[in-house]
Amino acid sequence: MLTPRENLRITQVGPGTPMGNVMRCYWQPLLLAEELGEADGAPVRVRLLGEDLIAFCGTDGAVGLVDAYCPHRRAPLFFGRNEERGLRCVYHGWKFDRSGACVDMPSEPPDSLFKSKVTVTAYPTWEGGGLVWAYLGPRESRPPPPAFDFVRVPPTHRNVVKMLQENNWLQGLEGAIDSVHSGFLHNDDLREKSQLRNAPARVEFERTAHGLAGAAIHALGDGRNYVRAFTYIMPTHSLRVRTLGRTGAPEEIPTISGQIWVPIDDRTSWLYNYMYATRPDRPLNVAFVDARNALYGRGPDDFGAGYRLKRSRENDYMIDRELQRTRSFSGIKGMNTQDIALQECMGPVLDRSKEHLAHSDRVIIALRKALLEAADTVERGERPGAADPADYAGVRLTDVLVDERVDWADALREGVLR
Amino acid sequence: MLTPRENLRITQVGPGTPMGNVMRCYWQPLLLAEELGEADGAPVRVRLLGEDLIAFCGTDGAVGLVDAYCPHRRAPLFFGRNEERGLRCVYHGWKFDRSGACVDMPSEPPDSLFKSKVTVTAYPTWEGGGLVWAYLGPRESRPPPPAFDFVRVPPTHRNVVKMLQENNWLQGLEGAIDSVHSGFLHNDDLREKSQLRNAPARVEFERTAHGLAGAAIHALGDGRNYVRAFTYIMPTHSLRVRTLGRTGAPEEIPTISGQIWVPIDDRTSWLYNYMYATRPDRPLNVAFVDARNALYGRGPDDFGAGYRLKRSRENDYMIDRELQRTRSFSGIKGMNTQDIALQECMGPVLDRSKEHLAHSDRVIIALRKALLEAADTVERGERPGAADPADYAGVRLTDVLVDERVDWADALREGVLR
Amino acid sequence: MLTPRENLRITQVGPGTPMGNVMRCYWQPLLLAEELGEADGAPVRVRLLGEDLIAFCGTDGAVGLVDAYCPHRRAPLFFGRNEERGLRCVYHGWKFDRSGACVDMPSEPPDSLFKSKVTVTAYPTWEGGGLVWAYLGPRESRPPPPAFDFVRVPPTHRNVVKMLQENNWLQGLEGAIDSVHSGFLHNDDLREKSQLRNAPARVEFERTAHGLAGAAIHALGDGRNYVRAFTYIMPTHSLRVRTLGRTGAPEEIPTISGQIWVPIDDRTSWLYNYMYATRPDRPLNVAFVDARNALYGRGPDDFGAGYRLKRSRENDYMIDRELQRTRSFSGIKGMNTQDIALQECMGPVLDRSKEHLAHSDRVIIALRKALLEAADTVERGERPGAADPADYAGVRLTDVLVDERVDWADALREGVLR
Repeated sequence: MLTPRENLRITQVGPGTPMGNVMRCYWQPLLLAEELGEADGAPVRVRLLGEDLIAFCGTDGAVGLVDAYCPHRRAPLFFGRNEERGLRCVYHGWKFDRSGACVDMPSEPPDSLFKSKVTVTAYPTWEGGGLVWAYLGPRESRPPPPAFDFVRVPPTHRNVVKMLQENNWLQGLEGAIDSVHSGFLHNDDLREKSQLRNAPARVEFERTAHGLAGAAIHALGDGRNYVRAFTYIMPTHSLRVRTLGRTGAPEEIPTISGQIWVPIDDRTSWLYNYMYATRPDRPLNVAFVDARNALYGRGPDDFGAGYRLKRSRENDYMIDRELQRTRSFSGIKGMNTQDIALQECMGPVLDRSKEHLAHSDRVIIALRKALLEAADTVERGERPGAADPADYAGVRLTDVLVDERVDWADALREGVLR
Repeated sequence: MLTPRENLRITQVGPGTPMGNVMRCYWQPLLLAEELGEADGAPVRVRLLGEDLIAFCGTDGAVGLVDAYCPHRRAPLFFGRNEERGLRCVYHGWKFDRSGACVDMPSEPPDSLFKSKVTVTAYPTWEGGGLVWAYLGPRESRPPPPAFDFVRVPPTHRNVVKMLQENNWLQGLEGAIDSVHSGFLHNDDLREKSQLRNAPARVEFERTAHGLAGAAIHALGDGRNYVRAFTYIMPTHSLRVRTLGRTGAPEEIPTISGQIWVPIDDRTSWLYNYMYATRPDRPLNVAFVDARNALYGRGPDDFGAGYRLKRSRENDYMIDRELQRTRSFSGIKGMNTQDIALQECMGPVLDRSKEHLAHSDRVIIALRKALLEAADTVERGERPGAADPADYAGVRLTDVLVDERVDWADALREGVLR
Repeated sequence: MLTPRENLRITQVGPGTPMGNVMRCYWQPLLLAEELGEADGAPVRVRLLGEDLIAFCGTDGAVGLVDAYCPHRRAPLFFGRNEERGLRCVYHGWKFDRSGACVDMPSEPPDSLFKSKVTVTAYPTWEGGGLVWAYLGPRESRPPPPAFDFVRVPPTHRNVVKMLQENNWLQGLEGAIDSVHSGFLHNDDLREKSQLRNAPARVEFERTAHGLAGAAIHALGDGRNYVRAFTYIMPTHSLRVRTLGRTGAPEEIPTISGQIWVPIDDRTSWLYNYMYATRPDRPLNVAFVDARNALYGRGPDDFGAGYRLKRSRENDYMIDRELQRTRSFSGIKGMNTQDIALQECMGPVLDRSKEHLAHSDRVIIALRKALLEAADTVERGERPGAADPADYAGVRLTDVLVDERVDWADALREGVLR
């Protein structure tokens, strides 16, 4: 439970807000690389951390990212001409390059010096992991580019699905690190005798340089525990693993899954769901990816326009009450949809002053503590955790079957990804 | 005419507002009983007095009414499982019974005492008159259930039509107790030589324990008056009678009509229109009900989705200017539609500081006075009129043809409903 | 660049605002005469300077203009009966004439004096130039009716096209007096070797009693200048001329074009585009008008409902990126659409504190200065420029081909409209 003031402090991401300043210490996913089209193609509107921006793919294929409005008379640069060396405003022909410099000002006398005095706000971009990333923070403290594993594997080993979620980013993220809800909300087969398959017996975790590391520990009832690692990487990344089935037999293709909640603004988010294959010799195959995405309700047929699921607030996420009565805990199809249904209908910004947190919410409490401390850290002029990729670059997730007397952290240290 | 401050005081109904506190002294219609479906059926969203709630029909058929959000992490209970003994949140499986107690908390350790410390806001309900009623006030001052006549007659004698009205409740109610407008707005036959049929010669009334009682007195021009009673019952009920035609011949089926404006919030209302037959041996018949509802523009074909009339603001209530020119004062079909057209287009909350009230508005002034006094009464910790059904349970409406020298109150005392 | 406070001062037009008071010194276009229909026809909703009004065409054909709400109980007069001598509210039958006097109050006792005490807000109207004009200012300072040339020519010599623009009026007006943008935004043929056809070599202007007068001077490169006059008439009128082509040969039909941005409220405007033929013996012909309107993207097929262009924000004004790449600077069809696209997407009220104005913006700076000074003038209780039509009635626009050493003002003085 937070005070209303803390709730604002932890959720708001606009320019100048405490958490907005935290977010601006990191590279943030801007859009899918495929959204930008070809070199010199049409500019694309993007909203990130409450800022309206225009992305454009330059002649050399590098991505420019500038304020959505021309500094001259605030005409919309969306209509601009993406020409060699930059983006030209169609109102009076002013042209800006990727660095924000004005490189042409044809409406002024040729001898004018005004051109050298005008710049447009511009942010650096970086492409990796099928995404274009942007850094919206102060130029002098720009960190090295992201070093997530999924960014470094070849495209054959990776799948990314983008999704609009119409609520504050933190609601989504809190769901992702909350292992406990899976056994309830995502229980799609009530007829199974045991819910063990999903619901952990307990959750353990610890603070790390990059955020949180922990495990969901499932007691199998035969003297063994199934220990599954999860990790939170500051500020918006959640990772989970499944390389083993319950029996201890490795699944066909060992994968790690991640989710990133990128704040569009305080009330809407992009959710990037990704998975990647951890063994260099075992790329993802189409059938596996399709089956996984279908299970999560994020197959190609599940989407309407604008990366928005067809199961949406307007149709109550197509809840099937008969299915809910007889077979599925939620009656809603697809695990992503189940999360989004609950989180969107909490309201655009959850009022955390009205919660009643319990023992099982300790991870959520730790997440909030880490974020509020990061806000303090940034206010002191220091770097928050994981702003430097070195903080998380070595993180590996694993799962193991071990004797129930073994400590979870020891167990995970021994489990090595194949 | 009210000051802007008085206008807020008399119209706002949210928790903690003066009129909201008045409204919370009474049982309020929550929804039609038929809206809830079968036992253990799907939960239903309801908004009442600015509060978002979930209604559910329990295993025993009794109706539960709880906060729309789980007290744990504010997940929407609309998606909840309506199971034996209560409603279970699908996020983490917490379950609440009708009293608001948490009866299961499976996400916590079995020995946790937290369950006994958590409750969800829950309100009592009562079923009667084809409606489910709810009481949103303090538990200790809960009044006996409603004792309106229409609640007590058998279903064969009663008809209720629910209607969405997109403006503050008081605008609707003020129209209902304003007998004078009928002769204008509801005059659907300009060719009649006399408008006597509708417009009263004068309106008389007096304050009562339950609100207001009065009569519209129509001078017939032959030495006789046609005296029709009307009554206002605190805080949102209006009743009218027609048992006689103008000739003195009783209509086929003597009925009393009522209207209740239930505040959804400050800007939208449910209007419940009901009529009931007053003679135990004469139930309503289908043809009569259909004709009456058609006349008022509230037949089955008049509605779109969500109890909203098809004649609406977007289509100017289908006003027919040629009809208005030649035959109908308003050019709008249906008396309910005529009222709703004017009242919705006054704006969501009428600005009563800009009015110019006249002699004919004395009933409206008295209504406002009664309501503002009720707000004072409640602030003093006392009960407003009609909070106890004993205040209105004996009220009977009638109409009579009498010599024009007879006092209206005497006339009504002598008129006895058959 | 203005301060945020100056930006509010110059843009807001509601009752009591500084610029609202300026606007209320002038007759403003209310609607097209054709919108009102026949005598005693249906009343029409109008919103002007943030005020909701009802216009109605009386029995004698004169136009009444009153508050949208009856002074009695604020019922919407839109549903009113347009009867002989006035508009009758359908709620209680009160009737008002064009002057705002209550001429019938049938719901009150016959001997009531209340009728003489109640008025509805009413504004004078005047018809001219195919428009109905309204004056919303203080009765005592009402100026003579508009004396624009286009108002005085016969209908055969005039064409007016009305258009909704969803942004503050000043954004539109600033575009109209900004000659420089034409050579960029409106350059629809990139293949032309020279952009001289549109872009002026320089712009000169001076303050006048009526606002601004100036010229766009195009250097032809042969020792001659093509000098085209433009004029700004307070508070919302822009005029341009083209009687000559670049070669010096007169166009077939010499015309002057004007644009008026009428504030509906602070965030939406009506744009009236007009042209008129300047030679009494040469009326406009249909083919010429159709071609001109098509060129500007304002032909009959370009409109959806409510005078709104089909090319709109929702469809990105149907920008054609391939066309933009190969042929048209903007890729948007129609000069009006090009302007509206940019101006609407600046946001409903442009934030002028974020601009970077250059040498070429001197006319815009002068326009703002004139408007802010007018606000000061009105606050001192004096009349702003052009409130009296005598200030602008003699204004004639012309264009001339002259030796490049000739002063623009001298050149225009010599150019006489044929």
